[in-house]
Amino acid sequence: MSDNKLIYLDNNATSAIDEKVLEAMMPFFKENYANPSSMYSFGATAQKAVVEARGIMKDFFNAKSEKEIYFTGCGSEGANTAIKGVLGADKTKKHIITTKVEHPCVLNPYKYYESKGYNVDYIGVNSNGELDLDELKEKVSSNTALVSCMYANNETGVIFPVEKVVDIVKSKNPDTKVFVDAVQAAGKIDIDVQKINADLVSVSGHKFHAPKGIGALYAKAGTLFTPLIIGGHQERGKRAGTENVPYIVGIAKAAQLAKDSLNYELTEVKRLRDKLERGLLKSVFNTRLNSGVANRVPNTTNIGFEYIEGELILLHFSDIGICASSGSACTSGSLEPSHVLRAMGVPFTSLHGSVRFSLSRFTTEDEIDYVLEKVPAIIEKLVKISPYQEELEELRAHK
Amino acid sequence: MSDNKLIYLDNNATSAIDEKVLEAMMPFFKENYANPSSMYSFGATAQKAVVEARGIMKDFFNAKSEKEIYFTGCGSEGANTAIKGVLGADKTKKHIITTKVEHPCVLNPYKYYESKGYNVDYIGVNSNGELDLDELKEKVSSNTALVSCMYANNETGVIFPVEKVVDIVKSKNPDTKVFVDAVQAAGKIDIDVQKINADLVSVSGHKFHAPKGIGALYAKAGTLFTPLIIGGHQERGKRAGTENVPYIVGIAKAAQLAKDSLNYELTEVKRLRDKLERGLLKSVFNTRLNSGVANRVPNTTNIGFEYIEGELILLHFSDIGICASSGSACTSGSLEPSHVLRAMGVPFTSLHGSVRFSLSRFTTEDEIDYVLEKVPAIIEKLVKISPYQEELEELRAHK
Repeated sequence: MSDNKLIYLDNNATSAIDEKVLEAMMPFFKENYANPSSMYSFGATAQKAVVEARGIMKDFFNAKSEKEIYFTGCGSEGANTAIKGVLGADKTKKHIITTKVEHPCVLNPYKYYESKGYNVDYIGVNSNGELDLDELKEKVSSNTALVSCMYANNETGVIFPVEKVVDIVKSKNPDTKVFVDAVQAAGKIDIDVQKINADLVSVSGHKFHAPKGIGALYAKAGTLFTPLIIGGHQERGKRAGTENVPYIVGIAKAAQLAKDSLNYELTEVKRLRDKLERGLLKSVFNTRLNSGVANRVPNTTNIGFEYIEGELILLHFSDIGICASSGSACTSGSLEPSHVLRAMGVPFTSLHGSVRFSLSRFTTEDEIDYVLEKVPAIIEKLVKISPYQEELEELRAHK
Repeated sequence: MSDNKLIYLDNNATSAIDEKVLEAMMPFFKENYANPSSMYSFGATAQKAVVEARGIMKDFFNAKSEKEIYFTGCGSEGANTAIKGVLGADKTKKHIITTKVEHPCVLNPYKYYESKGYNVDYIGVNSNGELDLDELKEKVSSNTALVSCMYANNETGVIFPVEKVVDIVKSKNPDTKVFVDAVQAAGKIDIDVQKINADLVSVSGHKFHAPKGIGALYAKAGTLFTPLIIGGHQERGKRAGTENVPYIVGIAKAAQLAKDSLNYELTEVKRLRDKLERGLLKSVFNTRLNSGVANRVPNTTNIGFEYIEGELILLHFSDIGICASSGSACTSGSLEPSHVLRAMGVPFTSLHGSVRFSLSRFTTEDEIDYVLEKVPAIIEKLVKISPYQEELEELRAHK
């Protein structure tokens, strides 16, 4: 970064810890270090903090009881717990339905179950990234153990109608469990488990200004699932391991702040996202909005820069302090283009040059202005070295 | 706590975070919050910190390569990963050997495997808590997939001859994998995987002044194991989930400090432990050293107060600020007496009144003096209300 500027527009990868979250955690890194399971009164403060945090997460999910809330070590652990837990508790049904655009921490467990003889259907999306509900309806059968559908897509921000998904599934087979990976929805839109009525819902703290390394799983009362980490009595026998008290306090504080900021997300963050999106689509000729007009979380936009290379764009962005990404951080290192954009049928001309910008409540107008000012010149520079000069000229002529 | 005194002698349950550890973590809670998998230069600091931490943990274990080190979300996750990972990678052998005195995060996974049709042998210990190596030798067969033996017992501090265990196992079946739960050894004695030669070794940060919620697993190069948490590419595909950068930095710093303090542990901490132990055994007539003369980690003593109730003792201790415990925090809430002490054949007269004191490098001479000053009167008070007056009188007469 030439001038030490930092324009952080990769909040779907991870987010800065809110100062108030860090403040809330600090006493549990310092004086209140007891094991919450201990017998002595020194442990009572830690124990009380965990109880309170569970209550806050209950409210965050709008769950009916604190007993429906389990703290996990991350979003991936939450998804693995939900998936392996449900399939471990009922081994009679061998059919799973999910979507083509889930996060790797959901897709990869299903690939594992395929190798174990399960039949997995992957529901497709249209060019706007919207789920094919008819296909879903058709696939649910008496043998369907689990349907798993994300709440919002990490790459495009597209919101899935999880309420409808649950309705469709339960009307065809009330015994089928529904798991909603809400990692990219939490903190951006309201999560109300009474409304969506899913059996299991997972969130990850570091996507909404808590630290990396803590998540929460909602499991509706009566939902049977086997634990992923077996051992001590913690989390009512569903997740062994000494409670990570500071992070549990941290995710609860972050959830509270996120709930308080929802209106700001839906107005100001959305306004800045829209300004960025419209500005780039207007000022850069070879752009394409990958998510189209779909219903999206307010902080995310995914823009294809046609006929140029995404990694090159990101490196040039990095040089002037702009942090954005091409796909999920969890798939980085792979040279394959995004499975999400491919499932949407994004044309290959745009597929390799797609960039996700994800804002947060800490994003400022100045930062968006800086991006709008600097990006066009970067793209022009990369357009010049593209091997697709003819196609680019035609595109420019038609803009 | 009447006078706000805090004498923390429960370091085997959890330990205070070293200030230097917290200091090392802070930049990663604040300015350096990037996802280490990100493409931009802002992520490079986080990535570099993880690489360095892995190098430090390599040195801590005396591993041959950084590639043998995996960060986990806690000690229980490490044990579950080792156990389920090894058994998941080789399903041809259905026999497991472990000890009767393992931690619940090891014993409970084996109970699960028993329910899945595995045959599990639990090796016993003598009255000093020492392992029956002849029994072990006898049990290893061509069908033995895994032998699992802790390095040091959490309740008694007794050190197991894991080097010999590995020798015995490998000489009878070189294909059998050996997993060593070193959670209670780490930071108290040197852990050298070249010397002990086990295939997998796990440690937990919060037992040696790192935070709760981070562990490390050593897996010898070439050891096949399936991941517990499937998803992204992190930890070379063996543990999905965005890296918990601050805690990874924290466990490495704590490991470094622990290595630097080993000599202090073996001299000063041991001196204070011995002073406490000898003092109590001398000044309180109804005491019994549960671990006998066995080789122990320097910080732990387990003392039985005969004919009185452990929970009552702990509550009276708590009232004057002394934190100790009766068994593992992970089994608290259960009314069953310790499975470790039962396996050692501790007589029932002592079983219910056993207390574990576990010191750390932060324990002071004043604290030990305070305990030695206060405990005799507490025990006398409880002796008075014991229903075993006759037995106690006889015991007092023979002391």
